[in-house]
Amino acid sequence: MSVSSFRSKDLTRATALVYSSYGRPTEVLKVLCHTLEPPSHDSVQVQFLASPINPADINQIEGVYPLKPPMTTQLHSSSSSFVSSPPASTPAAYSSNSNSGSSSNSSDWPPVAVGGNEGVAKVIKVGSKVGHLKVGDWVVMGSAGQGTWRSHGNFKAKDLTKVRSVEKMNEGADSFALDVVQLATLTVNPCTAYRMLRDFKKLSPGDFIIQNGANSGVGEAVIQLAKPLGVKTINIIRHRPGHEEVTERLKQLGATHILTDDQLGKLETKELVKSWIQNSEVKLGFNCVGGKPTTEMARLLSKNGHLVTYGAMSRQPLILPASLQIFKNVHASGFWLTAWNDEHSSQERQDMINDVLDFMKQGQFAEINCTRNRWSVTESDTSVLEEKLLQVVQKATSSGHGKQVFVME
Amino acid sequence: MSVSSFRSKDLTRATALVYSSYGRPTEVLKVLCHTLEPPSHDSVQVQFLASPINPADINQIEGVYPLKPPMTTQLHSSSSSFVSSPPASTPAAYSSNSNSGSSSNSSDWPPVAVGGNEGVAKVIKVGSKVGHLKVGDWVVMGSAGQGTWRSHGNFKAKDLTKVRSVEKMNEGADSFALDVVQLATLTVNPCTAYRMLRDFKKLSPGDFIIQNGANSGVGEAVIQLAKPLGVKTINIIRHRPGHEEVTERLKQLGATHILTDDQLGKLETKELVKSWIQNSEVKLGFNCVGGKPTTEMARLLSKNGHLVTYGAMSRQPLILPASLQIFKNVHASGFWLTAWNDEHSSQERQDMINDVLDFMKQGQFAEINCTRNRWSVTESDTSVLEEKLLQVVQKATSSGHGKQVFVME
Repeated sequence: MSVSSFRSKDLTRATALVYSSYGRPTEVLKVLCHTLEPPSHDSVQVQFLASPINPADINQIEGVYPLKPPMTTQLHSSSSSFVSSPPASTPAAYSSNSNSGSSSNSSDWPPVAVGGNEGVAKVIKVGSKVGHLKVGDWVVMGSAGQGTWRSHGNFKAKDLTKVRSVEKMNEGADSFALDVVQLATLTVNPCTAYRMLRDFKKLSPGDFIIQNGANSGVGEAVIQLAKPLGVKTINIIRHRPGHEEVTERLKQLGATHILTDDQLGKLETKELVKSWIQNSEVKLGFNCVGGKPTTEMARLLSKNGHLVTYGAMSRQPLILPASLQIFKNVHASGFWLTAWNDEHSSQERQDMINDVLDFMKQGQFAEINCTRNRWSVTESDTSVLEEKLLQVVQKATSSGHGKQVFVME
Repeated sequence: MSVSSFRSKDLTRATALVYSSYGRPTEVLKVLCHTLEPPSHDSVQVQFLASPINPADINQIEGVYPLKPPMTTQLHSSSSSFVSSPPASTPAAYSSNSNSGSSSNSSDWPPVAVGGNEGVAKVIKVGSKVGHLKVGDWVVMGSAGQGTWRSHGNFKAKDLTKVRSVEKMNEGADSFALDVVQLATLTVNPCTAYRMLRDFKKLSPGDFIIQNGANSGVGEAVIQLAKPLGVKTINIIRHRPGHEEVTERLKQLGATHILTDDQLGKLETKELVKSWIQNSEVKLGFNCVGGKPTTEMARLLSKNGHLVTYGAMSRQPLILPASLQIFKNVHASGFWLTAWNDEHSSQERQDMINDVLDFMKQGQFAEINCTRNRWSVTESDTSVLEEKLLQVVQKATSSGHGKQVFVME
């Protein structure tokens, strides 16, 4: 066997949605076909099973998200190719649709980043010094910015978190009913909800939390993770057509009470909430909306309450009357899971994932509402693949289509 | 000696500025002449030496401050009298200037509260079971709401904090140069500054804090208490006529840097602050203003910084962009010394006072800018006294007169 044929047998054909400059995702994303070398001694090679498109992924590609994955040339080699014309080496030339600077020679290509931050993958090759991961294990990303919109990838083993052990699967001891989409959407929304319920206030059974955007991914996870803790939830949703159905869904997930945002700030709502909480306390508030409705939500917190902001869907800031902070001692903080992951160890991340998985295995988690979009890992016509994938991105960036997930098959 | 003459010898003639309903201070405050019984076993009787008029005192009388001292009839007796007509027994009748309901019979008078929350007093009588206070000791109020605008009063010993020991004074060991006004204004502004510098972030020499309203009572105390800690201060003052003099004064107090509020939000100011802090961090922000300038101040905090709101002079809320909280992890809390005092022990309050006194004794504190107004404790014409005291209140409630302090002589 010649060296070259040995090597080529060891290479993995892969496809990835990459970008080399910031802009509209459907314009800057391209499919890059490439080959992966075997993983280095501390790395593993994985095949992705499912990767969602989250709002932060879109913001990241637009260049308006604080976490910007470094653009690299590590996927560029003589066997790599872009389906459409490769991106120009300068964003300016590229955005003007000039072909100057484009080249079929990979050494001329600009560095790229792979889109996506969340996903579940199966380990297919293991580096020589990796101890805790085996071929067949399922993993999720231990931190953001690694790029998950791809068929395959090599990752440092320490940057992955195991969600399903091949040994337990073989023993039949891990035959739980979680599907790939539940696992693929485990590390952002449920983990954000998990941390926010733990890191700001000690909650005991009977305590209340209040949240807006209650039908967001995090909001639904909060409802479902609060319930087994005995923590009651007051959930604010938008008053718009279909809010009755949303109310019904949230109640089925375990929501204790629902308010529509038009009820906020009214005296009767204050009285209603009082009648709900009685001698208990609203210890925590979760805010992903901002603006005046959030001020009114903050007023419903009990003394010493803590408002945690993790989003700003209204694009409005948080507005807090001084009296709420001075006399009622209401605290306001932010939460960003990306920072938490960076500041904590692999073991701490693994513990969190295991806890959330336990909830899921107990059937505490409803399936998320999403559209599953096939990413064919065997598609020979990669221009067809690019067209299909960009249609999915298009749906994810326009309203009314709900959450989109790539399912690699 | 007859019982009655023995008793009358034991009584203390006292005057107090009291109110029985909320409203404009100059309209609802009246001088109540009364006699004090000897203090009960757990109490002491004090003669006030000086009591300031703070903004919160005015808000309290207006009924717009969350701490409302209970109104009681404990100063009413057959020997009590109001200088002007006593207040009516219902606020409605009183505010309509009707005399119906007024009476010279003290049992018909409505309950009253004594104005003022801060002051220094000398112990003149000690209850049988009081151990730690002696006749001649000087004390300040251990908590708010006790009423300090009076010549004399009986207080539970546990509600007072010693600032000057008669024994040490007699030994000549406590002959420091603090005057009554410095001691009378010790428990609100310097203690607020002291706590805010300690309770939110661990500060080390070289760390920065930033504050607005830097020439307020608390602001000046922050500058002076930060300096011996080696903590550097960035001080924001209003850009208005006279700001050069304010800058000069704050520099003399030890301010590291001064900004006027019109500089906030400008790119060059951001660069300027960067050049000041270099590799250090702006760990804490103190806010007594609110509104958009405070948002701009919050943007100057370093990552993980903490913004503490203790006032809202602009009457505007705090406005915080979500990104500051989510991505920069800026926290926002309030601070209210009244709550701190309620939640901590006499010993903890005494420790704080001793610490602040130590700073003062080392000459770290400049005299505060204020007008001293004599409260004659021997004035026989109490209608003259009432007129004079209400003139002082008038000055305190209108702008341009600066801080007013009653000095009892």
